[in-house]
Amino acid sequence: MPKRLTADAYIDGILNGDRVMLSRAITVIESRLRGDKKLASAILQGILPKTGNALRIGITGVPGVGKSTFIEAFGQYLTSLGKHIAVLAIDPSSRISGGSILGDKTRMENLAHDSRAYIRPSSTGLSLGGVARNTRNVMLLCEAAGYEVILVETVGVGQSETLVKGMTDFFLLLMLAGAGDELQGIKKGIMEMVDAIAINKADGVNELLANQAVSDYQSALHLMSHSTSGFTARVLSCSALERRGMDTIWETIEEYVKLTNSNGFFVKNRQSQNMDQLHSSIQQALQDRFYENNAVKSRLLSLEKMVSEGNELPVNAAEHLIDLYLNSQTSLDKS
Amino acid sequence: MPKRLTADAYIDGILNGDRVMLSRAITVIESRLRGDKKLASAILQGILPKTGNALRIGITGVPGVGKSTFIEAFGQYLTSLGKHIAVLAIDPSSRISGGSILGDKTRMENLAHDSRAYIRPSSTGLSLGGVARNTRNVMLLCEAAGYEVILVETVGVGQSETLVKGMTDFFLLLMLAGAGDELQGIKKGIMEMVDAIAINKADGVNELLANQAVSDYQSALHLMSHSTSGFTARVLSCSALERRGMDTIWETIEEYVKLTNSNGFFVKNRQSQNMDQLHSSIQQALQDRFYENNAVKSRLLSLEKMVSEGNELPVNAAEHLIDLYLNSQTSLDKS
Repeated sequence: MPKRLTADAYIDGILNGDRVMLSRAITVIESRLRGDKKLASAILQGILPKTGNALRIGITGVPGVGKSTFIEAFGQYLTSLGKHIAVLAIDPSSRISGGSILGDKTRMENLAHDSRAYIRPSSTGLSLGGVARNTRNVMLLCEAAGYEVILVETVGVGQSETLVKGMTDFFLLLMLAGAGDELQGIKKGIMEMVDAIAINKADGVNELLANQAVSDYQSALHLMSHSTSGFTARVLSCSALERRGMDTIWETIEEYVKLTNSNGFFVKNRQSQNMDQLHSSIQQALQDRFYENNAVKSRLLSLEKMVSEGNELPVNAAEHLIDLYLNSQTSLDKS
Repeated sequence: MPKRLTADAYIDGILNGDRVMLSRAITVIESRLRGDKKLASAILQGILPKTGNALRIGITGVPGVGKSTFIEAFGQYLTSLGKHIAVLAIDPSSRISGGSILGDKTRMENLAHDSRAYIRPSSTGLSLGGVARNTRNVMLLCEAAGYEVILVETVGVGQSETLVKGMTDFFLLLMLAGAGDELQGIKKGIMEMVDAIAINKADGVNELLANQAVSDYQSALHLMSHSTSGFTARVLSCSALERRGMDTIWETIEEYVKLTNSNGFFVKNRQSQNMDQLHSSIQQALQDRFYENNAVKSRLLSLEKMVSEGNELPVNAAEHLIDLYLNSQTSLDKS
């Protein structure tokens, strides 16, 4: 067990904006050691009243779209406005590859050396749901440490965008001109959840193509938008390489915030995100405790065999196991 | 509470192929009365040893593709071979509309009067998962009653195909010539799970178009097929209206069965379907019992409020509720 401080020490450090303490607290949050769980929970509970004040922006796009360059350019634009920003990631590949821990920081070298920016790579070695839970908690710590804008990055393939969408206020999709969305591997479902699309690499010979793409995607978005926010999704162009278009993107986001603050969606959306997280946490915790239970463990294999061979009904086996589970809770208490 | 027989009476009736008793047993299975639950479970347990001998075929396609006409033609082809068939449905719309109870039988009038065929419409008024669970159980009853081929029909939009795929041996997609799959509303995901596509309405002026569609879809399938069965998905054409092509479709299915029996996939697939059902039953039952619990009910609303307003961490609230739930099991036992 690594050396740990008291919860209060972490909490005080974070609230004072101490980056070292922030990083050490994140290590506790992401720790899979049983002994760290209580500490993590106490830290989170302690900083909770100081969270929620940052603007949370999700950024997605397929590999090759220039996501790191964009985040570096956009991040530095924000810090040049005096804002403190944190960059987090949900990287589905980190589960298999062991992560892009070094990757993230070396990809954004300038931003990494910016004193107003804090970059934390995706946690690794967990299920996608576990990574997302960690990222959400890290976001809270960063908010408590005083970061005003949180950028949560993910790769636009698979389920990770849904998770990022579920924890951010504004969702930005990066795309390229000249490639159909089919070719770019972006699913229709993602188009439906974005608040803005930025056509990146609108530089050099690409600039005309990018302008065409802006109007193409604008009509596509118009067709499929089911916005509940009241905000009409916007398509913009930018060049992260040449650091152009960052101001327009930020203005669009500010416009979104202003509108959704005035129509109440901003708060309502966060509330429903919290609610969704409550119920998915319940589902996850119910299953975790069930499958870790010794009474269940001792019977599961043989029942699985009977069910799989068609000698027991799945529903009956399920009921039987749950009875075993709940009865074991009773006897635990008696002993 | 309606008048009920003993479990043995239903079981004997079903095993003797008594259609009236089969229908009455299905009513018990689909009943939402608390008192029927035990009886339903006893009936299912009793017939279980006599199940699993039918060939289970899932059939999907968007509205307008001629699904009822196809099932009538294909069903009558099978009964003409001397086979006893049952036609079941998972109809997502039945949840909202109150069902297509009359619809199914009147749509397939000839088949409905065929003594070798048994048609049972989708159960209604439940969640899609509940409908699927009922259909699966009804399938078992039909197998015990001696039906040799079970056709499970669904509409090719939304999640119902995944449920049908998860309970059948062979999955057939009906399509039309001359309309892109985009236009037909078929998702790519469905193409990936089919064992065969039948281009219906290959009659009159459509026949040439159908032949073109066969080769188009064959190449499309070839590209996206990730078959674990060892069977190469086939594209065929047919005319349900003119009752042509039914023999070829049946031969294809027989070929599939022969191949997957010899390579072991047929049995392995059923085993993993059973296993999946066990674990989704566990998940469902854990949640049902949790949310029905009085200790949980009495605390849920206030915790939901705290979580949604950001004053409590979702994960902590979840743990707290689960502790309450498990402790209430203990005290139940003491009292």
